[in-house]
Amino acid sequence: MAKTNPGRFFEDYTLGEVIRHAVPRTIKMGERALYHALYPARHALHSSDQFAQDCGLPFSPLDDLVTFHTVFGKTVPDVSLNAVANLGYAEGRWLTPLWPGDTITSESEVIGLKQNSNGKTGVVWVRTRGLNQHDETVIDYVRWVMVRKGDLDAPAPDTVVPDLKPALGVEDLTIPKGLDFTGYDTTLAGEPHRMADYEIGEQIDHVDGVTIEEAEHMMATRLWQNTAKVHFDATFREDGKRLIYGGHIISMARALSFNGLANAQMIVGLNGGAHANPCFAGDTVRAWSEVLDKAETSAPGVGAIRLRLVATRGGAPFTLKGGDGKYLPHVLLDLDYWALMPV
Amino acid sequence: MAKTNPGRFFEDYTLGEVIRHAVPRTIKMGERALYHALYPARHALHSSDQFAQDCGLPFSPLDDLVTFHTVFGKTVPDVSLNAVANLGYAEGRWLTPLWPGDTITSESEVIGLKQNSNGKTGVVWVRTRGLNQHDETVIDYVRWVMVRKGDLDAPAPDTVVPDLKPALGVEDLTIPKGLDFTGYDTTLAGEPHRMADYEIGEQIDHVDGVTIEEAEHMMATRLWQNTAKVHFDATFREDGKRLIYGGHIISMARALSFNGLANAQMIVGLNGGAHANPCFAGDTVRAWSEVLDKAETSAPGVGAIRLRLVATRGGAPFTLKGGDGKYLPHVLLDLDYWALMPV
Amino acid sequence: MAKTNPGRFFEDYTLGEVIRHAVPRTIKMGERALYHALYPARHALHSSDQFAQDCGLPFSPLDDLVTFHTVFGKTVPDVSLNAVANLGYAEGRWLTPLWPGDTITSESEVIGLKQNSNGKTGVVWVRTRGLNQHDETVIDYVRWVMVRKGDLDAPAPDTVVPDLKPALGVEDLTIPKGLDFTGYDTTLAGEPHRMADYEIGEQIDHVDGVTIEEAEHMMATRLWQNTAKVHFDATFREDGKRLIYGGHIISMARALSFNGLANAQMIVGLNGGAHANPCFAGDTVRAWSEVLDKAETSAPGVGAIRLRLVATRGGAPFTLKGGDGKYLPHVLLDLDYWALMPV
Repeated sequence: MAKTNPGRFFEDYTLGEVIRHAVPRTIKMGERALYHALYPARHALHSSDQFAQDCGLPFSPLDDLVTFHTVFGKTVPDVSLNAVANLGYAEGRWLTPLWPGDTITSESEVIGLKQNSNGKTGVVWVRTRGLNQHDETVIDYVRWVMVRKGDLDAPAPDTVVPDLKPALGVEDLTIPKGLDFTGYDTTLAGEPHRMADYEIGEQIDHVDGVTIEEAEHMMATRLWQNTAKVHFDATFREDGKRLIYGGHIISMARALSFNGLANAQMIVGLNGGAHANPCFAGDTVRAWSEVLDKAETSAPGVGAIRLRLVATRGGAPFTLKGGDGKYLPHVLLDLDYWALMPV
Repeated sequence: MAKTNPGRFFEDYTLGEVIRHAVPRTIKMGERALYHALYPARHALHSSDQFAQDCGLPFSPLDDLVTFHTVFGKTVPDVSLNAVANLGYAEGRWLTPLWPGDTITSESEVIGLKQNSNGKTGVVWVRTRGLNQHDETVIDYVRWVMVRKGDLDAPAPDTVVPDLKPALGVEDLTIPKGLDFTGYDTTLAGEPHRMADYEIGEQIDHVDGVTIEEAEHMMATRLWQNTAKVHFDATFREDGKRLIYGGHIISMARALSFNGLANAQMIVGLNGGAHANPCFAGDTVRAWSEVLDKAETSAPGVGAIRLRLVATRGGAPFTLKGGDGKYLPHVLLDLDYWALMPV
Repeated sequence: MAKTNPGRFFEDYTLGEVIRHAVPRTIKMGERALYHALYPARHALHSSDQFAQDCGLPFSPLDDLVTFHTVFGKTVPDVSLNAVANLGYAEGRWLTPLWPGDTITSESEVIGLKQNSNGKTGVVWVRTRGLNQHDETVIDYVRWVMVRKGDLDAPAPDTVVPDLKPALGVEDLTIPKGLDFTGYDTTLAGEPHRMADYEIGEQIDHVDGVTIEEAEHMMATRLWQNTAKVHFDATFREDGKRLIYGGHIISMARALSFNGLANAQMIVGLNGGAHANPCFAGDTVRAWSEVLDKAETSAPGVGAIRLRLVATRGGAPFTLKGGDGKYLPHVLLDLDYWALMPV
């Protein structure tokens, strides 16, 4: 019997099945230090215990994307080892901050299946939940991927396409317990702009760029125990290039967005996202944002801002799609998320 | 008086001498995070406090190879600065897990000396011990190296070749206090295979590959305060290449072996090892294993499995030596170790 | 209104103004592990809690240069974003060790202004202070930079050039509370040489070299939240090279100086420093030191040694300036500092 994991094929998924993913992980301050070394991350709430305490939290939580990457990485051996494409995200909610010392496990429920007309692949929708050691959900999100069939003769399952929200409403967001921005210090945070200073439709060029290195994206990807071959093995693709984990671009772009959105402190919702084009070492990543929506929340002084975050490798800022409706070749990422900032 | 360390030459070693190595080191969770960033390490016992507690330990210990590298690194200035070759390992035993917060020192006793017939070099055998802050031995192992003579006229010492076991028996192994695999969760650990599922002689291709980067092997090697010039200085060798620390390959291969040996959780014995060929940045490292032996232990549910771990850079899996009995050029490492896994 | 930080121009500084820098940072053991991975740092006091306790400290503080880099990094957006040149340092004093868990903020007072005769640039002197969460000063130092004018028509300020000491005296240095070297263990520290073994004027070639990688210098620079574009964006300079943060060279040279100055445990004073030439990935950095002064201190067994630390990329050791008084092209750094060592 072969001992290594061949990954699941399309016919191996059953609607309603819950897959418990392997390798629980205790996350502490070492991961935070690495996050600061790998990305130009400066949001004060994720940098300083004192700042977090002044915002009503017991101490500084890990960056919200650490939660996402840790939970996502665990799903790779069960969900995306034989995936052809990562098609989308929806209904992502951060429900509890990730505190240093927490141990994270994750599990995914199969919520949709649709065999493609070519009979060779199918689309699998999973709702993935990350849990901490208190069995609290730290994050849940829907992701769908195109997966190869292993046995082309396996019967097609009944088609079930889940009904997903195009975007979360502010009422769907969970505000971390105790969060209070009434005493928020914009000088320490790095910029004076509060939510009231942003207008819906406003676009921000984040100006800075980072040239990507193999060693950095591999360290980042390994840190979340994501083991997809294509990120690490230069002999895997015919062109000898290692494809960069899409989450590396998400974190890079989000960190770059500090310059112009320093006060968008915490990510609490993921409405959708597309990895528009692949990224390779040597590319210089830049980012721009667009304000999609704004709303008040029930927490004191805390507003919610909905942002489009676009990562590029060259090209003019604020360009996204061509006349054909397709992403331009220099666009790497188009992410739609909710963040919390002082009103 | 020259202030820098010239290293020891063959004639500087005396049988029975104990060398206390410099620079004690406190290891915490930062080193663990880096270990996870530098290697695709996923063994659950070294990843999760909860998993470790479910196995009877107080919390998750550092990877067993962190113990080895930390202790080994300290010996470099005293043992291998003028070494021509690292010839072998034997009788390596992990006696106490390395817990976050422990401070490690190390010392080596010279247990063998043999001048080579060329009169220019000699072989030095040392038994190295790593100690924690409670003066408990965390690891001990024998290593022998070929060292240059500094003064060719220095008299040859009496030849003493230590009597070393070709392999430890299961009775030589120390099981961490409290370890209990009766409630072991194979789903969380990542694979269903228990010791009973492996047969002696079975070979496992670990499938995955990692292309090596200069920045990564240098960070890993520095992390253990190993300062051998050849790993860091591109002007040191005539070919301008930095030789990769053999321990980097050990850790890489061991981490890759998760895919097929996810339940071989802890390393407790090192029977022998050869760094068969040098490795350089750009090489893509793969690994395969062979089951050499299996045994029960006195700890509940805990078996011991003896494994050959081979690292390669290309070449077919399961190839090792040529007709001449020499390692094939694509073989990097041939390691023989004992690990603990659920029976 | 543009949301991103354009940086300050020369006319934006006012004498006596205090600038509070953004993004407080909690530093723990993760940053220490990364420091050990990025630099060949081996000073025992910064490596081992036990060693530090044997020297009278509660536990091992972060490397003194971590304090410097963390505080310096915060000043970049306010002081050096539009700087043309980093001209010098003076009167740097480490006043309190940086303990794991401390949260650091920083602020700078403008203490000097001088418009250049070309009318296009000016020199700004700032005294920067780093503070911990108890409002204790951990470090203060003076730095001066040449900054572009944004509006060439802005009136020149009154010229004020601060009166700075060419070097601190031993009486200006602060010895960490409790520090006691009377039971100092030179074997554990790695070298036998005490302060009495060094002579004023003595020069030490630190022998080892490290070839610099893009991934490493970028991780180091990001770790201190230093975001100057020129270090990260390969498209920023016309030659496509990323300029290495000068502080990376300081830390590399200081770590290399262990080999010959292992007992110069703590940095307590910075008398001056020049980044003589730029450094790029691929350069192999070496270091040499010269003993400039020695003095006893009031702490038991603790001496102060004043050292010149020179970093180079090739060239003969102990060469520094040409006949024209200018730094030779292979010289990267010329630093003048005080360290504490056993008498």
